[in-house]
Amino acid sequence: MILVADNLRITTSSVRSALENRDSASIQTVVRQCLDAGADAIDINPGPLTRHPGPAMTFLVDAVQSVSQCPILLDTVNGEAMAAGLSVCEVPAIINGISLQPHKLEQMLPVAAGSDTDIVGYLLYPNGQVPPDASERLKVAVDLVEAVEKRGIDPSRLIIDPVIVPVAWNDGIVQASEVLSVLRHLPDLLGWPIRTIGGLSNLTSGGADRKKRIVLECAYLPMLADAELTMALMDMTHSLTVRIAHACGMLGRNSVFAWEAIS
Amino acid sequence: MILVADNLRITTSSVRSALENRDSASIQTVVRQCLDAGADAIDINPGPLTRHPGPAMTFLVDAVQSVSQCPILLDTVNGEAMAAGLSVCEVPAIINGISLQPHKLEQMLPVAAGSDTDIVGYLLYPNGQVPPDASERLKVAVDLVEAVEKRGIDPSRLIIDPVIVPVAWNDGIVQASEVLSVLRHLPDLLGWPIRTIGGLSNLTSGGADRKKRIVLECAYLPMLADAELTMALMDMTHSLTVRIAHACGMLGRNSVFAWEAIS
Repeated sequence: MILVADNLRITTSSVRSALENRDSASIQTVVRQCLDAGADAIDINPGPLTRHPGPAMTFLVDAVQSVSQCPILLDTVNGEAMAAGLSVCEVPAIINGISLQPHKLEQMLPVAAGSDTDIVGYLLYPNGQVPPDASERLKVAVDLVEAVEKRGIDPSRLIIDPVIVPVAWNDGIVQASEVLSVLRHLPDLLGWPIRTIGGLSNLTSGGADRKKRIVLECAYLPMLADAELTMALMDMTHSLTVRIAHACGMLGRNSVFAWEAIS
Repeated sequence: MILVADNLRITTSSVRSALENRDSASIQTVVRQCLDAGADAIDINPGPLTRHPGPAMTFLVDAVQSVSQCPILLDTVNGEAMAAGLSVCEVPAIINGISLQPHKLEQMLPVAAGSDTDIVGYLLYPNGQVPPDASERLKVAVDLVEAVEKRGIDPSRLIIDPVIVPVAWNDGIVQASEVLSVLRHLPDLLGWPIRTIGGLSNLTSGGADRKKRIVLECAYLPMLADAELTMALMDMTHSLTVRIAHACGMLGRNSVFAWEAIS
């Protein structure tokens, strides 16, 4: 499982302040911490970027790639920011992301068509709502593949996000199980070994107690791993979750077991 | 998931010494620790019991049931010990267990036929070896059900143990994955919601580093939970594993989520 750090997000006050002050050093510190913790890729989530979207995104991409050769996920709904980020990105970039929401398709598909990067595709209804179960998510996946193909984009560039929701939602428990089902059925449905990504931190969103959040993550992550999730978007400061993620990798069918590889 | 303590085993020197000295207090201390840690049942594993098997087992059962009303798993290959244990057990007892090994069938099936307890059935070949994959284990399961039925025993009394092997075995990684597959396929194959049990401690057997053993357990246990393992036989002093087991229960489809229930 590829571990993607979600720590570079605008909702963290230190990241927000570093972006506002164009303080590269603070961004680089976060990135180094994520890499040291075992991150394989960095998600840059600068929020809606209503002011100066292009310069803000290029600042962030430059700050990250100045200390890391890891792939970068450009996590924005702002088409201008996306195009600017892609234009300066010298490491592998991933567009994060598109969904059937008309404004996302309109903003992102032309940008995606003009590049050869991978594209995260969220299984959301056109109105942005989360489908209630696996079967509805799979229908959305088929529609999303069609929408991408219509624009002449190779659907094998898609990395599907089945949308993990907070477990504290009314139907959160059922949704957690439905997401696993989607992961298990997608490859057969689409007919190729589709790659997938899941936002693990979403599961425990709203949970105030860090310790409890981590225990719950640690219970769900191996289930995602067993359902062959390709990429986990997660908080890299949760060191126990990272250790368990690595142990899950060790339990993968194609690995060769060695006690030394368990941390 | 029902948590069964495997802490009362003769391979632990303090348990061995308590059994030799008929020291009830020491046994009761272990049992209380397991219950405090969250055990739902206690496995009594006194080893081969070559000397005085009956009195040894009745001593252990009495020591356990004097401080606990939990179900007791009588974990012995000695038919005399099994019969003696069953005869004094006032709490729900489970015969642990039988397999296609002729001596086990001969020793245990008559004892089982004379009681109405549940019976753990190991998916082992008649020669005692571990089948190499899920498909072979499923064949063994069918044979085991037949063997039980032939003796007039209702096969719904069976709790199937698919046999978790040390991950450090040459094919340990593949076996870990095959066990999950067995758990997923058994109910359809047998045609009823068959209960299952797995010895989690076996997975990390031979691993010297306690911390690494726990991380690996914590990665595998949620996979077992997601494959709907009914009972996990485990070391209850591994508190992180227990917390994650409870979180897995919380993620089960029929639970109602509450942060308060996460420890």
